[in-house]
Amino acid sequence: MNSPDDERGLDPEDWEALRLVGHRLVDELLHSLRTVREQPAWRPIPESVKQGFRTPAPMQGSSPEAVHREFLETVFPYRLGNIHPRFFARVMGTGTPMGALAEFAAAAMNNNLSGLESSAVHVEAQVLRWLKALLGFPETASGLLTSGCSIANLIALQVARDEYAGVDVNVEGVQASRYRLVAYASDEVHSAVQRALMVLGLGSTALRRVPTGPDFRMRVEDLEDRIDDDVGQGLRPFCIVGSCGTVNTGAIDPLDAMADLAERRKLWFHVDGAFGALAALSPSLRERVRGLERAHSVAFDLHKWGSAPYGVGVVLVRDAEAHHRAFQTEAAYLSPLPRGVAAADYPANELGPELSRGFRGLRIWMAWKEHGVSRLARAIEMNVAQAAHVKQRVEGEAELQLSAPVPLNLVTFRYVGRRRRSPEALDALQAEIVMRVQESGVAVPSTTKLRGRTVIRLAIVNHRSRRADLDALLDAVLREGRALGG
Amino acid sequence: MNSPDDERGLDPEDWEALRLVGHRLVDELLHSLRTVREQPAWRPIPESVKQGFRTPAPMQGSSPEAVHREFLETVFPYRLGNIHPRFFARVMGTGTPMGALAEFAAAAMNNNLSGLESSAVHVEAQVLRWLKALLGFPETASGLLTSGCSIANLIALQVARDEYAGVDVNVEGVQASRYRLVAYASDEVHSAVQRALMVLGLGSTALRRVPTGPDFRMRVEDLEDRIDDDVGQGLRPFCIVGSCGTVNTGAIDPLDAMADLAERRKLWFHVDGAFGALAALSPSLRERVRGLERAHSVAFDLHKWGSAPYGVGVVLVRDAEAHHRAFQTEAAYLSPLPRGVAAADYPANELGPELSRGFRGLRIWMAWKEHGVSRLARAIEMNVAQAAHVKQRVEGEAELQLSAPVPLNLVTFRYVGRRRRSPEALDALQAEIVMRVQESGVAVPSTTKLRGRTVIRLAIVNHRSRRADLDALLDAVLREGRALGG
Repeated sequence: MNSPDDERGLDPEDWEALRLVGHRLVDELLHSLRTVREQPAWRPIPESVKQGFRTPAPMQGSSPEAVHREFLETVFPYRLGNIHPRFFARVMGTGTPMGALAEFAAAAMNNNLSGLESSAVHVEAQVLRWLKALLGFPETASGLLTSGCSIANLIALQVARDEYAGVDVNVEGVQASRYRLVAYASDEVHSAVQRALMVLGLGSTALRRVPTGPDFRMRVEDLEDRIDDDVGQGLRPFCIVGSCGTVNTGAIDPLDAMADLAERRKLWFHVDGAFGALAALSPSLRERVRGLERAHSVAFDLHKWGSAPYGVGVVLVRDAEAHHRAFQTEAAYLSPLPRGVAAADYPANELGPELSRGFRGLRIWMAWKEHGVSRLARAIEMNVAQAAHVKQRVEGEAELQLSAPVPLNLVTFRYVGRRRRSPEALDALQAEIVMRVQESGVAVPSTTKLRGRTVIRLAIVNHRSRRADLDALLDAVLREGRALGG
Repeated sequence: MNSPDDERGLDPEDWEALRLVGHRLVDELLHSLRTVREQPAWRPIPESVKQGFRTPAPMQGSSPEAVHREFLETVFPYRLGNIHPRFFARVMGTGTPMGALAEFAAAAMNNNLSGLESSAVHVEAQVLRWLKALLGFPETASGLLTSGCSIANLIALQVARDEYAGVDVNVEGVQASRYRLVAYASDEVHSAVQRALMVLGLGSTALRRVPTGPDFRMRVEDLEDRIDDDVGQGLRPFCIVGSCGTVNTGAIDPLDAMADLAERRKLWFHVDGAFGALAALSPSLRERVRGLERAHSVAFDLHKWGSAPYGVGVVLVRDAEAHHRAFQTEAAYLSPLPRGVAAADYPANELGPELSRGFRGLRIWMAWKEHGVSRLARAIEMNVAQAAHVKQRVEGEAELQLSAPVPLNLVTFRYVGRRRRSPEALDALQAEIVMRVQESGVAVPSTTKLRGRTVIRLAIVNHRSRRADLDALLDAVLREGRALGG
């Protein structure tokens, strides 16, 4: 087909040049992942590189080689570093090389999953079936791959809100309800739950934080007292949120007892299992998250302990109809037809706040087929064993002090040294040690606050880490602590 | 560093095998994109392939080659098809090969943009600065790359909600407000706006749909009457939503007049510019979207007319502080430190419902540097010229009838043939023709309803399309129409 000369799209002039850039990217990035241990765990961005990011929009194009070179020189070296075996900050996933290739495949295919028939919707449905089976959810449950756990939590809480408001909130709004809905979680709950309630129009005061004990877990008896108090004050409890692996210490709420309570009080039981839910993949760890399988809904990430590239999270909702009701809208242009592309029996565009969604499932489908679920489960078990090893070493070092129990894969501790310091000085010392260790490039720990005091925190969700990496980090902490006066 | 034998992550045993799979993927997928015109625009999924997607989770792994082969045989061929030059269903972007490679690079780097220092946050900030400049927004405006326009609309409407509720909604919830907030849009507004109001707890009745005229654009005088009525009934108007390119016909609301009205009535002016906003990139089309640059907030996609791979959308908010207020939460583990990875001055984790976000900006950064903004603008102009060409041809064919004006890049029309048919028979005929054209593999048009009647709809957002592709589609419509009785 001939085209007028003025018709020109965005495909490359020189496909061969782009193909070679593709090969070089594959070679260089896989090599970099393979040898990442030899590189610093983190490096600051030079001012000159930062300045390069201030240039105006490129009105004219440049060669694929030039773009590739610029990426390799200014972007890739100054990554956050969560692909490095000694990165333990926040709770960040490492990803896998196959997952990265899958992202190229998904983007080349460029599938939009908004209700039209294609292999992508079947792949996503399959991945969701796998997850339901592995987490003990019934196949009839509904699910969606989201951009991450925040949106997954939001979806689950919206379904719960709508079920308990007593009016059709989606039509009439929250103000039409005669109830003031309140949800419950431990005081160690992730901020995403609070933010979801803000988005949903319930406000952060709708989140009742029940103080935890020394193990940082929900105390179910206190939870029930709090519910009774609120009922007495005319509020309407609607949801209990269990944390399956808190972000600070990895604490797992007593999910089974919370499920019992939710059943008895006829409340929605939601589990935020951002990383912890995937412990259910391991036969030896499954017992630690017992009760998860009884939740009305669960939200978790695959880009954390699932080692998928960012961003992919999951929400599972036991009552598929309730899930569907919460997001139903009508649009003439979305009407299905009996045949052709619009014949898909796939209501995923009505299961969350997004309509168009990219092909998030392929990275799971390809990576899991490559490494297998068993090996992922073993990597998760390995991280738990590494956390136990750190705990043991911390307990054996006089200069270190464990800050919280280690129920899973997070360890919090402090460098206390050999001399007395004020609480404020000790806080400042932890932050200074963490910054120095980061700046040294040896490893990336982070800090958090427990009961108001700064602690060093390691989130071990990294399949590339080895016990020796954790030893190297502890050595660095001791070294910096001693350099700061011991 | 030696490791115990039981420590094994998810990296490949055989890096070289994975590297070769990477090369083959690059070769095969780029070749497929280069020759996509020779393939059918769509093909149904054989039942046997669908059955393959019912297998249980792979507990044991397999070789990278086997995974690669399965992807190429069962997934890639049955894609939705929006990468094909004759795909015009919904409003779906085509993507670019460089954009796909960028997705591999982003996933290998695996950066999480949740407030920590890295090159990725600077790239995202740069892309947002480009977009602000190109759309006429001030550099002081706030912005965020989202998974798509639905979440972008949600964010903008949440900021507006919070500014007008008269209480701190994020603390106290919508019920604490003494106002019933109502928003305004034309009856051609996208369902995402309704869904956003549902999520936000305002309910779909909070969306007042103002009937459009024959051009499917908002009638501003009717809008003001409706506002007056609502004020008279004690409701509180808070937001006017302008559609910059409606999903049914591409109609552009009189944005300038709506901005005037919003100013006069002190209302929030939000623009949903899912695809249409990018017309602002073209000097010759910019006039058609005049007024966009006056909005308080604008939401649009880059995976549609921006030709980026799914999913990436944008929200820009003129008042950066209002934007930040709407999503602020506190979490001890997210506290910044003066140096190291936690030293970033980058509050993106407080600008929307997500905390962790993948590196969505790289595909824009790399693709725009390759093809340049000017060429993207020309591709957009090309699509608008193609729509004008289709309009002209439809008007010249006795058997076809234009269904709506063609203000931009969408064309709606019907096959009316040469004999009289009931309205219902005509509706069914359009659907049947569309399904047959899809099944033939020649092209993928879709349907929508205008004023309750089914029409054929072409969304021309495809940089790979040529005028000849649209002619081939029209020929196929005529052929199928005649085969169905003419």
